[in-house]
Amino acid sequence: MSTTVIKNGTIVTADLTYKADVLIEGGVITAIGPNLMGETSLDATGCYVMPGGIDPHTHLEMPFMGTYSTDDFESGTRAALAGGTTMVIDFALPSPGQSLLEAITMWDNKSTRANCDYSFHMAITWWGEQVFNEMETVVKDKGITTFKHFMAYKGALMVDDDEMYASFSRVGELGGIAMVHAENGDVVAQLQQKLLAAGNNGPEAHAYSRPAEVEGEATNRAIMIADMTGTPLYVVHTSCEQSHEAIRRARQKGMRVWGEPLIQHLTLDESEYAHPDWDHAARRVMSPPFRNKLHQDSLWAGLSAGSLQVVATDHCAFTTEQKRYGVGDFTKIPNGTGGLEDRMPMLWTYGVGTGRLTMNEFVAVTSTNIAKILNCYPKKGAVLVGADADLVVWDPEKSKTISAGTQQSAIDYNVFEGKHVKGLPRFTLTRGHVAIHDGEVRTEEGHGKFVARKPVTPTNTALSTWKELTSPRKVERSGIPASGV
Amino acid sequence: MSTTVIKNGTIVTADLTYKADVLIEGGVITAIGPNLMGETSLDATGCYVMPGGIDPHTHLEMPFMGTYSTDDFESGTRAALAGGTTMVIDFALPSPGQSLLEAITMWDNKSTRANCDYSFHMAITWWGEQVFNEMETVVKDKGITTFKHFMAYKGALMVDDDEMYASFSRVGELGGIAMVHAENGDVVAQLQQKLLAAGNNGPEAHAYSRPAEVEGEATNRAIMIADMTGTPLYVVHTSCEQSHEAIRRARQKGMRVWGEPLIQHLTLDESEYAHPDWDHAARRVMSPPFRNKLHQDSLWAGLSAGSLQVVATDHCAFTTEQKRYGVGDFTKIPNGTGGLEDRMPMLWTYGVGTGRLTMNEFVAVTSTNIAKILNCYPKKGAVLVGADADLVVWDPEKSKTISAGTQQSAIDYNVFEGKHVKGLPRFTLTRGHVAIHDGEVRTEEGHGKFVARKPVTPTNTALSTWKELTSPRKVERSGIPASGV
Amino acid sequence: MSTTVIKNGTIVTADLTYKADVLIEGGVITAIGPNLMGETSLDATGCYVMPGGIDPHTHLEMPFMGTYSTDDFESGTRAALAGGTTMVIDFALPSPGQSLLEAITMWDNKSTRANCDYSFHMAITWWGEQVFNEMETVVKDKGITTFKHFMAYKGALMVDDDEMYASFSRVGELGGIAMVHAENGDVVAQLQQKLLAAGNNGPEAHAYSRPAEVEGEATNRAIMIADMTGTPLYVVHTSCEQSHEAIRRARQKGMRVWGEPLIQHLTLDESEYAHPDWDHAARRVMSPPFRNKLHQDSLWAGLSAGSLQVVATDHCAFTTEQKRYGVGDFTKIPNGTGGLEDRMPMLWTYGVGTGRLTMNEFVAVTSTNIAKILNCYPKKGAVLVGADADLVVWDPEKSKTISAGTQQSAIDYNVFEGKHVKGLPRFTLTRGHVAIHDGEVRTEEGHGKFVARKPVTPTNTALSTWKELTSPRKVERSGIPASGV
Amino acid sequence: MSTTVIKNGTIVTADLTYKADVLIEGGVITAIGPNLMGETSLDATGCYVMPGGIDPHTHLEMPFMGTYSTDDFESGTRAALAGGTTMVIDFALPSPGQSLLEAITMWDNKSTRANCDYSFHMAITWWGEQVFNEMETVVKDKGITTFKHFMAYKGALMVDDDEMYASFSRVGELGGIAMVHAENGDVVAQLQQKLLAAGNNGPEAHAYSRPAEVEGEATNRAIMIADMTGTPLYVVHTSCEQSHEAIRRARQKGMRVWGEPLIQHLTLDESEYAHPDWDHAARRVMSPPFRNKLHQDSLWAGLSAGSLQVVATDHCAFTTEQKRYGVGDFTKIPNGTGGLEDRMPMLWTYGVGTGRLTMNEFVAVTSTNIAKILNCYPKKGAVLVGADADLVVWDPEKSKTISAGTQQSAIDYNVFEGKHVKGLPRFTLTRGHVAIHDGEVRTEEGHGKFVARKPVTPTNTALSTWKELTSPRKVERSGIPASGV
Ligand SMILES: [Zn+2]
Ligand SMILES: [Zn+2]
Ligand SMILES: [Zn+2]
Ligand SMILES: [Zn+2]
Ligand SMILES: [Zn+2]
Ligand SMILES: [Zn+2]
Ligand SMILES: [Zn+2]
Ligand SMILES: [Zn+2]
Repeated sequence: MSTTVIKNGTIVTADLTYKADVLIEGGVITAIGPNLMGETSLDATGCYVMPGGIDPHTHLEMPFMGTYSTDDFESGTRAALAGGTTMVIDFALPSPGQSLLEAITMWDNKSTRANCDYSFHMAITWWGEQVFNEMETVVKDKGITTFKHFMAYKGALMVDDDEMYASFSRVGELGGIAMVHAENGDVVAQLQQKLLAAGNNGPEAHAYSRPAEVEGEATNRAIMIADMTGTPLYVVHTSCEQSHEAIRRARQKGMRVWGEPLIQHLTLDESEYAHPDWDHAARRVMSPPFRNKLHQDSLWAGLSAGSLQVVATDHCAFTTEQKRYGVGDFTKIPNGTGGLEDRMPMLWTYGVGTGRLTMNEFVAVTSTNIAKILNCYPKKGAVLVGADADLVVWDPEKSKTISAGTQQSAIDYNVFEGKHVKGLPRFTLTRGHVAIHDGEVRTEEGHGKFVARKPVTPTNTALSTWKELTSPRKVERSGIPASGV
Repeated sequence: MSTTVIKNGTIVTADLTYKADVLIEGGVITAIGPNLMGETSLDATGCYVMPGGIDPHTHLEMPFMGTYSTDDFESGTRAALAGGTTMVIDFALPSPGQSLLEAITMWDNKSTRANCDYSFHMAITWWGEQVFNEMETVVKDKGITTFKHFMAYKGALMVDDDEMYASFSRVGELGGIAMVHAENGDVVAQLQQKLLAAGNNGPEAHAYSRPAEVEGEATNRAIMIADMTGTPLYVVHTSCEQSHEAIRRARQKGMRVWGEPLIQHLTLDESEYAHPDWDHAARRVMSPPFRNKLHQDSLWAGLSAGSLQVVATDHCAFTTEQKRYGVGDFTKIPNGTGGLEDRMPMLWTYGVGTGRLTMNEFVAVTSTNIAKILNCYPKKGAVLVGADADLVVWDPEKSKTISAGTQQSAIDYNVFEGKHVKGLPRFTLTRGHVAIHDGEVRTEEGHGKFVARKPVTPTNTALSTWKELTSPRKVERSGIPASGV
Repeated sequence: MSTTVIKNGTIVTADLTYKADVLIEGGVITAIGPNLMGETSLDATGCYVMPGGIDPHTHLEMPFMGTYSTDDFESGTRAALAGGTTMVIDFALPSPGQSLLEAITMWDNKSTRANCDYSFHMAITWWGEQVFNEMETVVKDKGITTFKHFMAYKGALMVDDDEMYASFSRVGELGGIAMVHAENGDVVAQLQQKLLAAGNNGPEAHAYSRPAEVEGEATNRAIMIADMTGTPLYVVHTSCEQSHEAIRRARQKGMRVWGEPLIQHLTLDESEYAHPDWDHAARRVMSPPFRNKLHQDSLWAGLSAGSLQVVATDHCAFTTEQKRYGVGDFTKIPNGTGGLEDRMPMLWTYGVGTGRLTMNEFVAVTSTNIAKILNCYPKKGAVLVGADADLVVWDPEKSKTISAGTQQSAIDYNVFEGKHVKGLPRFTLTRGHVAIHDGEVRTEEGHGKFVARKPVTPTNTALSTWKELTSPRKVERSGIPASGV
Repeated sequence: MSTTVIKNGTIVTADLTYKADVLIEGGVITAIGPNLMGETSLDATGCYVMPGGIDPHTHLEMPFMGTYSTDDFESGTRAALAGGTTMVIDFALPSPGQSLLEAITMWDNKSTRANCDYSFHMAITWWGEQVFNEMETVVKDKGITTFKHFMAYKGALMVDDDEMYASFSRVGELGGIAMVHAENGDVVAQLQQKLLAAGNNGPEAHAYSRPAEVEGEATNRAIMIADMTGTPLYVVHTSCEQSHEAIRRARQKGMRVWGEPLIQHLTLDESEYAHPDWDHAARRVMSPPFRNKLHQDSLWAGLSAGSLQVVATDHCAFTTEQKRYGVGDFTKIPNGTGGLEDRMPMLWTYGVGTGRLTMNEFVAVTSTNIAKILNCYPKKGAVLVGADADLVVWDPEKSKTISAGTQQSAIDYNVFEGKHVKGLPRFTLTRGHVAIHDGEVRTEEGHGKFVARKPVTPTNTALSTWKELTSPRKVERSGIPASGV
């Protein structure tokens, strides 16, 4: 097997910063230390060698009205690699009524073209005995341990509290992790109707229909249900102080809850929807919508305080053409924006560059924490001997202005258009393969493999122990009912 | 008309403490000042003359499985007067599908026997065009402006988020106030099944099935829906820190939300359910259940801080016989406890007696705040010329040990049995009639009248103004969709 | 005695809104009701008849470097009346080492010219046996029960924690209320030196030297000391979320703490200091400085939630000439701005006009709450028979643009210059004397009298009871030390 | 060099749990993997191989009134090793006026007998130019980067706000970390006098004199000063919700603050002081004192939520004889308790055993987080090739009842006496030396070496960057003062 060595770099992990070379063989890190040699050498002088980014939340080639979201597993993972991300976790989405296993097959088929490794979350979009039973197979045979629930998208993907309780219970039993898209779907639907009735049909009304309070409420509710069922909870796309507040309030009671801000919510704000150009605004339509600066400050502080743990993209971009499906009715604008290519440079620039995050925290929230929570560490998310050589050689002096014109993503625009970023990959390696080589794209379609994950994390174990210890105890009584007293 | 004068007392209102006599004529206060004379004289030496208590939350003669809760409007209001309470507000409860107006008629019939004045809240137990339409009549013709929604009691009274949104919107439009019984009914039902399945069938399991988190969640959700619809919200029986936290968090955003602790939750705790006597425990079954000391501290602090505003009883007691309907299955124990007779002495003893509350705060939370929020001030809740002579002459030195054996209430037990209270009525007057005369009960069946209340309080007006000012604004665009950007 | 009647108005109090005429005789309200008649009649058609405003925090003719702050008791109270305020509470400020009683004499002398009633707070600017002893005289003989402590102004008025503890203890013992100007004076002094050393000598550096965190810290510290000594605490000029947070956190533990936002902090923000004109910025120099919109939102919500109780001005304006004393060194700019004339119209416009406050809350925070907390209710702050006829007849349709050119205040500028207000006095009455008559100023120099206040409010009593109940209990031991264990 | 191998164990780090052997040579880990061989073999079957504990807070052989605290560096580190702790960080305490360098020499002399490695924090007990200057030497030449400040112990070690500001600024400049013992010393002294005056002279009065509010206040103040100076802050012995609340509130604003609960505060409560035996109570006298269950819950939740980061002991035990110095005057009872030997088993039993913490979190808070924050990671706190072989082989099935009779510590009692712990070291290794061998103590006096630490951690860098970015900006003005405006 041929060997590659990354020379003269500074390794930056979630824990540490130190100078060392990295030797790679067979897609795996085989040595870390000074003066290593290999057949191929990558010069990391002046660079940081970090675990490649993991995006825990993408929707590549997602079905929409008979078409698909723009980036598929090929272009999406190519864009990811260009930005220093070496793994994505996508959502297998059964239609209501559809078998979970069938959905996995569909996603397996799409993902064959991936340029980097990937894993799946399973969405629970309906409830029934079949779902209950298949969940066990999904966890035990399919390596998928994380189950997403939509509290919004009424009439489509939404599940109600009863279904959440039942599904969370099942997830907990199987040692998995419950996930939620947290917005109150009933209220969103009501607000949508009210806005449309008032003639508010533009993309800005999308934001009006999904206020922070509506997200905060759903987050709070999901947390309570997770607590009642004794299941760890992962809240996707935490966009606002309200939701963050619910999460940290829960954590301060010892509950096991994680929050995932998106790079979009950290760096873009609601003023985008006031843009006079309809396309501009519509391209930024996603759920939850962008918020104001206050919410951004909350999210940034959460990342450094540890009350929020990871940064994702919810990458699910639709073309301008697809977006225009909602002209005249904002509820028909397909929801989703991109970010897979820009997450790492944007977070570095606005996080590490400003001092909001240390470099180590950057690695933690873009990669290591994700791998730990989702249980694929240290295969992923680590610079350790034995770990997959999913690495990014990060040049802190390299800069560019983000533009759709020069991106790998297949989307015809970029929500970060015009943002100047400083800090970019010199090389990105996926299991040892140099997919990005100093600006040159050398991705290999189909190189990516599925990463199976195991249930029953230490968090599951600890939580179960605590719940057992504090479970209700029956009062012993003699003579029921009794007289007296 | 004959006149009565209360002599030599110290008037204590929500605002003030001062010495003055009170002259009463035709059931109304006609003079307050020194040296007043009347045909009948009541000696208030050493006593405080206060507005009679108002209990904003009772269920007298409430239907249950073909029988009724123990205290009817006669015994219930007699018990109330004995404890210094001169007005009760009961709930007209339509069965699902039943006309609101019919329900009012039913309650009108029952209340003819009342010994003191009363008013009604209307419960919204189902939703439909008829309900929507009748609500207007209820507010405009029937003098009922407050609408209660059950978020628990699944399969019976419970309404879902969609119905709450619709009903709250309607309430706001009519200038009324939304009320909620806040517990997540889906989750309660799930926990009940789980507990029963595990053999937890005793009354303590009732408490286990309704944790504070479940109440806090529902409170938080109701607040969000009220905020979205622009409607003031009144949360009944706030029993825990979680619910209180949600309320004060909302208030700190300028939202208009009130919380109502019960005297039971302020002074009794969950250890009651661990009592070895089944009857003892079952008699304390109510929803929400009693909590621990922590929650009690939170409620008391809320009353002095102003984040909680009123104290009620949710008086709805069932006989031991009725309670025993749930032997072997706690979910069948009828929910409810008494308190109407004891609320004032218990709150005085544990509140004023300990320094947790000033005397003026005592009046505020037992009477004046209630009258203001529910819009019958200053007819009720005031010691002012022109106000109804609903008064209590409070003797701070009078004491007793609470016991079922000596109470007016028709219930065959008392949840406060054995509590020593100091501070009791010397006289209680209902519109001038001396119903309690130094230990002697002189109530007059049917003396009580319905108190109609008007909508569109100052709070409604302020909230509507703010919501209008901050409502979504359409972005004006020329050329949609546009090219570029 | 001649009589005056206010006809056809709507009375608005902290509790109520109702139509009635008001009859005044001998400076006192003698009747409230329909169809009253008096010798002089004031037409209140379309107007609200409210208790005159009380400003709990002014510094009229305050000594500064051998001169005085611009408005003295004559012009200051004239300005007050023009804006609907009928009572001011000023601070008697002994120099360090000076007798408290001497200071009162000085203030007595200045206040003889007052056009409306007034009272004093006493400042504790140093500590010693003499101060300890005189405090009793101040409370018992001088009618001053509120004692202010400066935690800032190091080297001048500042007292340290030890002195605060001693003084608060004494205040509590005497049944008084402790007050604090809460900013950490050590840290302010350090920041001032650092800023000056860095060449930051303009008025904006004043704001930089007094961050919200520094105010929040001091507020938190004062609350702890008040709690340890069992003394009610009144925090003057609460300007920021940090300070407000400390107050409401304390209140949620049952502590007795009040917060006083200023109208300036509610409506003006820090951007004023970035004004290119030095005079503009310097005229806005006060402590604490203006904050940003976030803090404003916090203060407004506090007023409606009840976690903040009153609105003041800290009126203490210096001429532009005096302000220029600090050219080249911001620490020499005299601290203080005006507001006495504008507090009521500004709060009405931005509070009632937007729906943030009800009319009744407006009366509460500008008058009634102040009178209650500071113990001069219902002589002041009430529309009740027997209360002083300190009244404002408020015309909600009257509007103007605030301008120094047209004001009563003697200051040569106005920090609210250019603000449009809607809601202004038609008449202002001070003890029955019509001082403002439909735009015409008819004040009477020397008309104002000192209002003595009594100690031992209900809050003092409740707090002492609670503190006694929860005070440390000695553990009884036999044999000390013991062997074993 | 001889080699040692730990065979058949499961490695547990802050990140990971996996089966592997560990090879040790020259006191350093040289290999981790399957099937390793060495000259000496330690059987870890059924055990967890973890980084040895680090106690970040001890006072060995601390001077007290001419004597010393009981455990010196020999017995103290022997006790540490017996309990699985392989490094202690002690405090060099200059007397007021004494040179910092002299203090280091004194501590260097004492520590020559240590059985395991150690480091020092420097206490700043006075302020002056000499201290300012020596701090640089301490950081750059002595390897001490953490500076402790006492906000209590008035008249002895206490520094005031001005000194803290100056010292924190200096610490920040040097890239160090400020530490505080956070209690308001002025208020403690006042409460002590008040209690003694009231005849409260027993050990329980120690607790009464140091309420949680007093600690919370000081923590809040230290945080503000750290924020103003841009210096990371480490709060020692965080014992209560109030202090924890201040820490997490700060962290939620992005401030860099850490909190250190002690094992005593996590597991023992205030009821200990009510013990009828004076000795029992006096032996538990430490500052802050033990708190109630509420505070314990807060601390546990903080550890799992990440708002508190490390667990220490403040080991500083005095003999019963020394404790009795305070008979008749609790203020003379020397402050301090032990815990070095019991921290790890107690935390495992009450943390991991209950499910409050995962095993990985256990390692993080007892070792890895400490090494990271205090900048000696991964030399310490890691199971990594190249790291010091400071390891504990933890047997989760081994149990004992804690008793002074069987402990290594020289103290004549144990505050955990009678507690049953499950989870104990089978072996403890200090730089490869097996100091504890299956119950047998094989420590080597003088084996321990000083661990120098470097300044300018990533946290320092990030914080400085942020503070520079957000520092005050001068407003440019032309013409000062200006006319107009
Ligand atoms: Zn989503
Ligand atoms: Zn998504
Ligand atoms: Zn209810
Ligand atoms: Zn009820
Ligand atoms: Zn001030
Ligand atoms: Zn002032
Ligand atoms: Zn200490
Ligand atoms: Zn210590």
